[in-house]
Amino acid sequence: MGTVTAADRTPKQDRSRLTRQRLLEAAVTCLAAHGWAGSTVAVVAERAGVSRGAAQHHFPTREDLFTAAVEYVAEQRSGALRALFPDGARDRAAVVAALVDLFTGPLFKAALQLWAAAAHEELLRLRVTEIEARVGRETHRIAVELLGVDESVPGARETVQGLLDMARGLGLAAVLTDDTRRRQRVVNQWSALLDEALGGGPVVTEARS
Amino acid sequence: MGTVTAADRTPKQDRSRLTRQRLLEAAVTCLAAHGWAGSTVAVVAERAGVSRGAAQHHFPTREDLFTAAVEYVAEQRSGALRALFPDGARDRAAVVAALVDLFTGPLFKAALQLWAAAAHEELLRLRVTEIEARVGRETHRIAVELLGVDESVPGARETVQGLLDMARGLGLAAVLTDDTRRRQRVVNQWSALLDEALGGGPVVTEARS
Repeated sequence: MGTVTAADRTPKQDRSRLTRQRLLEAAVTCLAAHGWAGSTVAVVAERAGVSRGAAQHHFPTREDLFTAAVEYVAEQRSGALRALFPDGARDRAAVVAALVDLFTGPLFKAALQLWAAAAHEELLRLRVTEIEARVGRETHRIAVELLGVDESVPGARETVQGLLDMARGLGLAAVLTDDTRRRQRVVNQWSALLDEALGGGPVVTEARS
Repeated sequence: MGTVTAADRTPKQDRSRLTRQRLLEAAVTCLAAHGWAGSTVAVVAERAGVSRGAAQHHFPTREDLFTAAVEYVAEQRSGALRALFPDGARDRAAVVAALVDLFTGPLFKAALQLWAAAAHEELLRLRVTEIEARVGRETHRIAVELLGVDESVPGARETVQGLLDMARGLGLAAVLTDDTRRRQRVVNQWSALLDEALGGGPVVTEARS
């Protein structure tokens, strides 16, 4: 490897990163559509247009691939959520709606399949529990920041936690049927409750540089 | 069958009802422990100590058995919830805690496995959606009654719906880890917020005869 120069190493690294990314995205789509029992490294590799060998180089086991996929997509969605409110949030209802959106769509459907499988597959349980803890902490942090919550106020932390539990429950309700209209009404009402609980009026958080 | 008298028909019906009940309860336990892929009529029959033929007489298909099981246990739990507050509820926090309890434990874990499978099995999806709608309506009715909610007040219906979504989300959080302490704090905080939203003070609903 001593003859590889920086100039030709970089495109290889780019290709490798791109392959990895395609595998992760295909894995989430596959898990959401077919469940854990129907999701293997081979199926994902084919969907991603990547050789099975290359897929196994990146992800030696099925558990590696699917847990990495759910975490990768969750991080992307968290980043996109922050980017929605670059100057801080002035409208709590908009923040609540955006938080609830985190729990609908293919990522949540994929995560649900992973949870369901982890409930009876020991190999998965520990991995999924770790990811859930990390992703959950990050989502809580974003919610506190965008909602302008002072967590030193007694109860404020649990108010936000309950809101995120509600968002997760709304996500579950949306897995089998289109629950959009009911969800919108619940989001409006709970946004109003939250505004009262946290102190009403528009929230202006610090602009993030 | 003309020679069968009422006297000997009744014990047979009792035995049949008992067999059915044992199958339904074993089905929920099996689904919670092994997921949809690991749950068949044969496995449940063995666990219930019932012959496979008898099991198939009661439930011709796997879908029949497991959807009936989740609905049966959900009805039992709803009945038990009403029985907890025979004279109406005076303490909203106790009602909220009892409602949240509906979404933890083996029934919720079994229902989650059914939802996860229904997301990619068309045969199941319609059946599970129907059951969910029925069980959901009944749970909402009980919540409104025990919380003493006047649904003609704008937003009251959505307040209760959001509470039940939160309960479902708390249930999901409890599938992989013991989340009891955090759940208790969230329940306390949202009970207080709900009390304010619905009009404070103890609730006295009509005693049910």
